[in-house]
Amino acid sequence: MAEEIVALRWEEPSGAGEGGPAIVLLDQTRLPVDEVELVCADAPALVRAIQTLAVRGAPLLGIAGAYGVALAAARGDDVDEAAELLAGARPTAVNLAYGVRRAQAAFHAGGRAGGGGAAAALAEARGLHADDARGSARMAEHGLRLLGGLLPGGGYRLLTHCNTGALVSGGGGTAFAVVRAAQRSGELRRLWVDETRPLLQGARLTAYEAARAGVPYTLLTDNAAGSLFASRQVDAVILGADRIAADGSVANKVGTYPLAVLARYHRVPFLVVAPTTTVDSGTPDGSAIEVEQRAGGEVTEFSVPHAAGSRSAGAAVPYAVAPVGAEAYNPAFDVTPPELVTALVTERGVVSPVTGDALAELCGR
Amino acid sequence: MAEEIVALRWEEPSGAGEGGPAIVLLDQTRLPVDEVELVCADAPALVRAIQTLAVRGAPLLGIAGAYGVALAAARGDDVDEAAELLAGARPTAVNLAYGVRRAQAAFHAGGRAGGGGAAAALAEARGLHADDARGSARMAEHGLRLLGGLLPGGGYRLLTHCNTGALVSGGGGTAFAVVRAAQRSGELRRLWVDETRPLLQGARLTAYEAARAGVPYTLLTDNAAGSLFASRQVDAVILGADRIAADGSVANKVGTYPLAVLARYHRVPFLVVAPTTTVDSGTPDGSAIEVEQRAGGEVTEFSVPHAAGSRSAGAAVPYAVAPVGAEAYNPAFDVTPPELVTALVTERGVVSPVTGDALAELCGR
Repeated sequence: MAEEIVALRWEEPSGAGEGGPAIVLLDQTRLPVDEVELVCADAPALVRAIQTLAVRGAPLLGIAGAYGVALAAARGDDVDEAAELLAGARPTAVNLAYGVRRAQAAFHAGGRAGGGGAAAALAEARGLHADDARGSARMAEHGLRLLGGLLPGGGYRLLTHCNTGALVSGGGGTAFAVVRAAQRSGELRRLWVDETRPLLQGARLTAYEAARAGVPYTLLTDNAAGSLFASRQVDAVILGADRIAADGSVANKVGTYPLAVLARYHRVPFLVVAPTTTVDSGTPDGSAIEVEQRAGGEVTEFSVPHAAGSRSAGAAVPYAVAPVGAEAYNPAFDVTPPELVTALVTERGVVSPVTGDALAELCGR
Repeated sequence: MAEEIVALRWEEPSGAGEGGPAIVLLDQTRLPVDEVELVCADAPALVRAIQTLAVRGAPLLGIAGAYGVALAAARGDDVDEAAELLAGARPTAVNLAYGVRRAQAAFHAGGRAGGGGAAAALAEARGLHADDARGSARMAEHGLRLLGGLLPGGGYRLLTHCNTGALVSGGGGTAFAVVRAAQRSGELRRLWVDETRPLLQGARLTAYEAARAGVPYTLLTDNAAGSLFASRQVDAVILGADRIAADGSVANKVGTYPLAVLARYHRVPFLVVAPTTTVDSGTPDGSAIEVEQRAGGEVTEFSVPHAAGSRSAGAAVPYAVAPVGAEAYNPAFDVTPPELVTALVTERGVVSPVTGDALAELCGR
């Protein structure tokens, strides 16, 4: 348990007769009880892994998408067809399409140059991966400096939502990388972790990352955050973004917007940490963001893979928590308008206040 | 499934050799999959049922507490000792203590009058039960009239939290009784049902009551309510209260306060429906309300009694959704200040705005 978490890696066959290369994922649907690897030998397998959330998180999806194109190219599959499948696997995740298109363009450029499209696509994926790790480190630096300015008393009690660490990144992640930096600086008093219904990425994944890193954390149901604000136990909210529109509207895991409203009501800083690749200049504002509606079964049933205390493997079993036939409203994301965001932390620096102009200037650099 | 829900009844032995009377509960921990009765033959069994939430909800707890005293009296147990146990079974539930004390006083008064304390305690419990059913009907009337005034366009889309219907009442309940009245009047377009983590009273119980009553409802995770407000799909929030302080501060299921903040931010009416017995004049304000902290396991594990689609009985099995050793913050309630409550609907009428003076006048009538 001492080594750092590796959410995704490219694996070359170790010898002849070993088959082709593969993308190896830490299956996030099996955490925190089991640490199981999922081997994707072709693009359709990776699409399934993306759709079941075995791999997830905006930056990591971009990396996964690029490696998926590289995998199709290495196998000699139809790269454009694989790219379409991959880019459309989750509609709200702009980084996914971005990574796919980068590797797809590299493949075609490499082919035209006669240098081998597959090698070019793989190099592009590796480059994205390394860039993301460097970006995480930069966001951690910028975010830590921002916290120091906003909260001069130190001893931060930070509230986070969903999962934004090494499980979503080629490096340390986004908001969670800032949390780790605060921990290393000795200024982190407590990390409040929203469980993040319906899929419990906070309970299953952020708590797992926090526990592995020795971060002092406390888990709560999403609706218990209100009590923490009311009793002045939250110094700042810090979380990630799945897509940022040109005006600074932030699409992120459902439950983000209510936290932004609570933070505003209680005058608590609300900080979004995301790489500039999350900014989609083609989406003018929040109303233009397509929000993925997911299956109602995620709400009406709990999918519980393992018995408490047991480490035995097994398929997930759905348990009904609502009457048979119950209809559910299950948006994957919500949209927070820029006026509720105190600051946006990117690898290129901090934007505060968050405006379309400031964002355009940052991204245009 | 056609008959109305009976959450609690007093059962006399049907013949000689049948043992004593009992309190028969519809075990709410087993809903919605199984409709199982739980027979409490003495006060300690009822205390356990209260603590495990087999019986719950402010008004019904008052009735249960009174019948619990009557049961101890009928058995010849130490009534004062049973009353202490019952009154302390859940600290935030003021109605519970109220019902217990009413039956306890009736027992002693009946004994002094020579008319038999046990019969007097039972009569008091039955009286509370009938009063509550009448109160539900009155709250439904007052609430429906209020909705008509606030939302003259009709076609109400109401958001509720936790469970406030026949499962918490000797009658139709509180907020849910208003919802049913709106349904009967033809003005209910949709009931949005918060699942209400951690114990899922919305998904398990309110959805069950809505389905049985033919109410058009949609279930959502608590943190998805923000999206509904933002897209103007909530016309009013309507929910119950576990305790109301003298200044009008409302203690209710955790997650109520964030909804009140969202409702204020979006200028949506926020309505609390509760009998005047919920008002505790001995609690001056919100800061004086003791909030029950429940076990972290309710957050870190899911207790799933049944496989989806299965109707087989079985004990609840805990499934870990967080790392072993995860600490959780799990307040049962939160407190909403009166300035965020648009109106309080009681059996005696509507208070709006909610102030200590208005509340004192209403309760003093």
